[in-house]
Amino acid sequence: MAAQIIDGKAVADRIREELRARLARLVSSGVRPGLAAVLVGDNPGSQLYVKMKGEASEEMGLAHWTIRMPADTPQPALLAEVARLNADPQVHGILVQQPLPPQISTEAAVLAVDPRKDVDCFHPETPAGVVELLVRSGNDPAGKDVVIAGRSNIVGKPLAALLMQKAPKANATVTVAHSATKDLAAHTRRADILVAAMGAPRMITADMVKDGAVVIDVGINRIPDATKKSGYRTVGDVDFAAVKEKVRAISPVPGGVGPMTIAMLLSNTVHAAELSLQT
Amino acid sequence: MAAQIIDGKAVADRIREELRARLARLVSSGVRPGLAAVLVGDNPGSQLYVKMKGEASEEMGLAHWTIRMPADTPQPALLAEVARLNADPQVHGILVQQPLPPQISTEAAVLAVDPRKDVDCFHPETPAGVVELLVRSGNDPAGKDVVIAGRSNIVGKPLAALLMQKAPKANATVTVAHSATKDLAAHTRRADILVAAMGAPRMITADMVKDGAVVIDVGINRIPDATKKSGYRTVGDVDFAAVKEKVRAISPVPGGVGPMTIAMLLSNTVHAAELSLQT
Repeated sequence: MAAQIIDGKAVADRIREELRARLARLVSSGVRPGLAAVLVGDNPGSQLYVKMKGEASEEMGLAHWTIRMPADTPQPALLAEVARLNADPQVHGILVQQPLPPQISTEAAVLAVDPRKDVDCFHPETPAGVVELLVRSGNDPAGKDVVIAGRSNIVGKPLAALLMQKAPKANATVTVAHSATKDLAAHTRRADILVAAMGAPRMITADMVKDGAVVIDVGINRIPDATKKSGYRTVGDVDFAAVKEKVRAISPVPGGVGPMTIAMLLSNTVHAAELSLQT
Repeated sequence: MAAQIIDGKAVADRIREELRARLARLVSSGVRPGLAAVLVGDNPGSQLYVKMKGEASEEMGLAHWTIRMPADTPQPALLAEVARLNADPQVHGILVQQPLPPQISTEAAVLAVDPRKDVDCFHPETPAGVVELLVRSGNDPAGKDVVIAGRSNIVGKPLAALLMQKAPKANATVTVAHSATKDLAAHTRRADILVAAMGAPRMITADMVKDGAVVIDVGINRIPDATKKSGYRTVGDVDFAAVKEKVRAISPVPGGVGPMTIAMLLSNTVHAAELSLQT
């Protein structure tokens, strides 16, 4: 039987549709959710992400602001800007784009954001996107053995924390494996749900996956490809072509977890605006 | 071969010995580490814990204060007291004893403590005690398969977060199992290191443990015992008598993790005082 290919774009579109209804209710209560992104310096990747987030907010009908600060901004100036946004009732979500220049402590910047406005942090976007992809594709993690390969602070660790909770969309038995794991394949092979988040191109091969498992690929890796005009193509952490032959469901790269990220950011901003009405 | 019985009392005494040397250096720099405990209401268990912590601080030579507030203290009054302690340079560690009365949000109280003074939170005492017990008994978790049975917010989850880090005394492949785990024994049986923290008397039986494993028992359960004057005795989450016959090392209850907890609180307070000198 052919594996279900989990279509992240379609799931993200469904989430945006639901958000439109919540947004309409907020607007009719006089609240337009607003997202402020703070961009320090001119890292091209960061500029692109912030631009995409702004366009997605615009398209959804959220208020949005991009605050650009020079690369040599001293830490107190950034913290003062965050404090101003914390105090601004029109701003429901604040996003300090990383990486930050070396004179600024990422931890200090993250801690400065009012927790009620920290849309990046209260449900980190990629982990929340993985959970939504699972649940909305009919693969609820409750009671399942989930193995997460990779322990990054932005994916592996927060995803483990989400999935092990006694809560809906969670309640899984969670293992976090990584570079120091003595037998990675022994762990991946027993997973009902395998999340690949190591950042190693196509490292998860078919022999490392159980028949009938569900596989979510968080990897985004560029590998050389002479047949492409750009000279490279993007692959995940999973050997998709081989693994899809034995699993029940698998998310592709691109088109799996990627499209979920911005949808979750919008969702977090709308949620923050809803909370602001309750207090 | 007889199992190593991991003696928590002896390890805790060694830690206190080391702390005395660090304390002497601090005092010679003009800093006496100080621990403030805030006790709201008259829960007898909380009173006992706070008393034990005060006595241990006294015995170690730390400054210590117990702030007692009535059971009907409004949340703003508690937060104001915490703010006062945050601002007091003589106070290096602040401990808001839980449980708190219903009119006070535990989360708000915990978030109010200056992170640099949050001795309960930056290395939660029981999880940090488990890590020290492992390392100091010669059972470093690095590269090992660790299975934690139990996902409480005060033990299972923070211990998992500690052990999965890429750091000394950590770097383990960590699984968190719990009440929704479909086959608990399948997980416990593959553990190199098994941490029992479910709060279920002697639930881990010998058939659930691998030959030669290391077992840390966090459980503290009272079971009826007619032969005792009190009518009960204290047992852990592990069937100690049977399990010790097949493992490499095991911590008993009482005398294992228990004695470590207060030693770690003292250690966290001394550490906070050392950090205060650096900034």
